[in-house]
Order: sequence, then structure tokens, then C-alpha cells
Amino acid sequence: MLRSIIIYVQGLQFVGETSSGHAIVMDGDPGVGGNNTGPAPMELLLLGIGGCSGMDVISILKKKKQDVRGLEINVKGEKANEYPKKFTDIDLEFVIKGKNISKEAVKRAIDLSMNKYCSVKANLEGSAKVNFSYKIIQD
Amino acid sequence: MLRSIIIYVQGLQFVGETSSGHAIVMDGDPGVGGNNTGPAPMELLLLGIGGCSGMDVISILKKKKQDVRGLEINVKGEKANEYPKKFTDIDLEFVIKGKNISKEAVKRAIDLSMNKYCSVKANLEGSAKVNFSYKIIQD
Repeated sequence: MLRSIIIYVQGLQFVGETSSGHAIVMDGDPGVGGNNTGPAPMELLLLGIGGCSGMDVISILKKKKQDVRGLEINVKGEKANEYPKKFTDIDLEFVIKGKNISKEAVKRAIDLSMNKYCSVKANLEGSAKVNFSYKIIQD
Repeated sequence: MLRSIIIYVQGLQFVGETSSGHAIVMDGDPGVGGNNTGPAPMELLLLGIGGCSGMDVISILKKKKQDVRGLEINVKGEKANEYPKKFTDIDLEFVIKGKNISKEAVKRAIDLSMNKYCSVKANLEGSAKVNFSYKIIQD
């Protein structure tokens, strides 16, 4: 069981506290009456899916003794025009940098994350199409 | 279209940058090999649904001229035991403090958020059961 408390501050600004002991500010865009003092709630979904899959991929590539020297995940979320304006499509691009990185190891790591381990993806794919691709930059 | 970049740092630590211009650290729990230097990706889903619905509720109650003096959302997420260990149940408790707060206005605001406006809820309810309740504390 994970718990969080979200506390109203002012305007559309909230502070969210997690059970792991961290607090972050969330705010709305000025277009919806906020002051953009922190990420918008929908942005946290993109950070979540990128962070979750990134942790899987880095763990698996390290177990496979790959010499990973960098990993970036570019995440794009396309929103519906109609309320509730949920994400309809989420695209993840994994950019792996390293020395003699095996393409097969990368494909397998991403496949394991996307289709077995990534909890955030499992919570989003019921409502949004999650697409992914990868790019390897050899050092 | 919303974009984010998630950049690997060390261990299971990542920095996520949002298109709104904010950066947050994410990390894993020590139990999974992280150092808990920031919220875990799954925790961001709970902050997201709390922040999203909180922004809706505060906006609607202010439009209804309610004298709101505080709002907290307690969020609990129950995870499956099996991989991908997604949230199966998410509970939101809205605690509204204020003066002469109308119960009907609160019920209506929460109903509008949960069933019409909250994008994060719409992206999670395909995969998790989202329950909600409320409590009013009159000043």
C-alpha cells in the first residue's frame, strides 16, 4: 500500500507528500489559472512512465553486463481534445549510450520492461496506447 | 502534446524534466536497489491523481463562492502482488475545511472532477478501481 497526502496551498498550487518521505509542488498552467510553480499533474504521469521503464532498463542492462554510459527517455503524451482530456497516446524513445552495447540486450530489456515489469505502464495502457522505440549511441 | 525527458544519473536515480520547465528527482526504494533520493515513479501517479482532482475541486468550489480554508486529499494505492504490480485500487479522501461549506457543493465538485474533468483519473481508471469519499470540517 502506498500513501500520499496532497495539501492545497494557494491558486492551483498543491504540495504532495509521498510515503517515501518526499514532497513536490504541483501547479497548473497559467492557461488554466495556475502559476506554473511546479509540474502539472498530467506531467507526473509522463515522468512516472519514463522513470519506471528507465529503472527497469538500466537494471536489466547492468545484469547483462552492458557498459551503459548514459540513458535518456524522451516521452511524449498526446491528449484528447474533449474532457477529461486524457492521454490517448504515449510515446517513449529510449536513447542508450555506451560501449559495445548489444542491440539484442537493449531490445530484450525494453521488451521486459514494457511487457512484464513496468507498473506505471500497466496502469496507463488501459486508457492510452503506449508506443516505444530505441536508439543506441555507441561510445 | 506534453513532452518530458528522463535522464539517468546513477543507481536507480533519474532526473525528469517537464515541458513546463520543472525538474524532479526520481529514485527507487532501497528494497529494489535504489537510494530513495526522490519519489518512486508509482508514487507520482498518486500525487498526480490527488493534484489533478484537487485542482478541479478547488476551482469548482471557488466558482460556487464557497469559503474554503483548506483542502487535503489523502490518497492510497493498493498494488497487485504479481508483476507488473500495478495499482488495482486507488482511494481518494477529500478533506475540505471552511466556513459554512455546503455539502451539496462539495459532492457536486467531487462528482464533476471524478466523472468529467480529471484527466489523471481518466488515465488510471482503465486499470485500477478509483474510489472516493469526502469529509467536511466546518471552521
